[in-house]
Amino acid sequence: MKALTVSCVGGAVLDVIYRVDQLPSSDTKLVARSRVESGGGMAANAAAAIARLGGNARWIGRVGDDDMANHIVSGLETSGVHVTARRICDATSPHSIVLVDQRGDRAIVLYRSTDFDADAQWLPLDMICQANVVLADNRWVAGAVRALDAARARGLPAVLDADISDDPQMILAVKAASHVVFSEQGLAGLFGTADPLEGLKRAAVHAPFVAVTLGGAGVAWLDAERQPQHLRAFPVTARETLGAGDVFHGAFALALAERRTESEALRFAAVTAALKCERTGGRSTFPNRSEVDERLLHTW
Amino acid sequence: MKALTVSCVGGAVLDVIYRVDQLPSSDTKLVARSRVESGGGMAANAAAAIARLGGNARWIGRVGDDDMANHIVSGLETSGVHVTARRICDATSPHSIVLVDQRGDRAIVLYRSTDFDADAQWLPLDMICQANVVLADNRWVAGAVRALDAARARGLPAVLDADISDDPQMILAVKAASHVVFSEQGLAGLFGTADPLEGLKRAAVHAPFVAVTLGGAGVAWLDAERQPQHLRAFPVTARETLGAGDVFHGAFALALAERRTESEALRFAAVTAALKCERTGGRSTFPNRSEVDERLLHTW
Repeated sequence: MKALTVSCVGGAVLDVIYRVDQLPSSDTKLVARSRVESGGGMAANAAAAIARLGGNARWIGRVGDDDMANHIVSGLETSGVHVTARRICDATSPHSIVLVDQRGDRAIVLYRSTDFDADAQWLPLDMICQANVVLADNRWVAGAVRALDAARARGLPAVLDADISDDPQMILAVKAASHVVFSEQGLAGLFGTADPLEGLKRAAVHAPFVAVTLGGAGVAWLDAERQPQHLRAFPVTARETLGAGDVFHGAFALALAERRTESEALRFAAVTAALKCERTGGRSTFPNRSEVDERLLHTW
Repeated sequence: MKALTVSCVGGAVLDVIYRVDQLPSSDTKLVARSRVESGGGMAANAAAAIARLGGNARWIGRVGDDDMANHIVSGLETSGVHVTARRICDATSPHSIVLVDQRGDRAIVLYRSTDFDADAQWLPLDMICQANVVLADNRWVAGAVRALDAARARGLPAVLDADISDDPQMILAVKAASHVVFSEQGLAGLFGTADPLEGLKRAAVHAPFVAVTLGGAGVAWLDAERQPQHLRAFPVTARETLGAGDVFHGAFALALAERRTESEALRFAAVTAALKCERTGGRSTFPNRSEVDERLLHTW
């Protein structure tokens, strides 16, 4: 099968991971045992997951004007992702400080520069839409709206990865998408309800297809008749859930590119994300196609 | 008076300061409110303090091969310090992640790359010793020994800033110095006693002049007859003690360059460091000469 293409528009960040003896408390000074950089970010991780699954993955987004930008781009390229990065002059790249103690507990401090403005006019829409599916995350709403609008105008599936956000514009990204897959917190935060099914009903006013990932409780969505459906989580022993949501969205978008139905695509995504959770490590441990196909033979 | 010159050999680090709503605990994810970079490091801060006091300050040391190195160097140059920096290929510059919560409490994670080896052969000893005093810190023992040995061979005061360390070679730096000013923890750690006077007696076996800073309890030293002397701390309302020890050492070295006696130099250093503690902010708030001279008119 010819490899299918997914364009992923949105965030890429650098996780800078320090191993420490214990997590810091007030007025402590710790010496880090090691420092490792690892690529992260919703759209960027989704692209890396797609590449690992054999798809043509593109990432389009902004980086800062620093070393971290180079590391973000080279990390994606190493993962097989085609990168179109706009450098924001004099800005610090988005990054997370991740402190991990000896027990594996972690504390994360995320930094996003206010120099990353909303401007999305530079997005190369023709290139982005020379794809089978366009995916965007909600970290950069103006970019998501512009990319998803362009995709739908050309008849392409337009997938939004909708995580929790305090951006009052977020609903605009939901309205621009053909398929919205929320995180549990993202859905609850946007529609003001802790009940996922109630949240999905409210979301369905704005987008044709809406789903929500529920971590260990699986995934829920509304089918073509707006009836709630549910898929249990694929049973694995989770060792590291960091990035699992991003992997889910990448796999879901690739499955849509392969013209699977939404419920098939969610099943494919659920297995891929579950396998990712079995392993620690970065993008090089994201599941590949044969691993996912082998597990898909099982029902659960 | 012609400005006198102090060469400072040792560490420069970049403090990367993130403001957060609260300090992180296990499995928390915080968004940083701001990110500010500030220069730090023992020898580098000492050099900046000397420049603020009107001395000719040089800093000689290693940096990594990254953006942080540029920021470390430009920060020192902005403070009026003449920089001779050796870039360690492919290494990450030494840096601290400083998390500050809304109450001003802070947690610090320090990272030092193992790529900074001991090699000190590159040190430009002739340039370093074209000075009135040479100061070194104990973060890079081989560099301190080589610089202090060269200074003493030329009859210059050779000052060691001796902070706590787990480097088993540290005693070699103490032996190389003509003047060692320990931190309380540095003295206790090296000589295995919590009693500063006992520590000074043990240290005096190795170096002609030994002193120890005791924070709010002042400074203690042994005079030419090896008798213990003590100076109370200059009374201030301390708002930020970060870097105060480094400022103390810089001021002490500059005062020796000005041919003050050791006890006069300690008094000058104590006032300078106390004034520094009255203020928050980086090197631009280090005390200048007229501020120190004004306070020196007081006895305390």
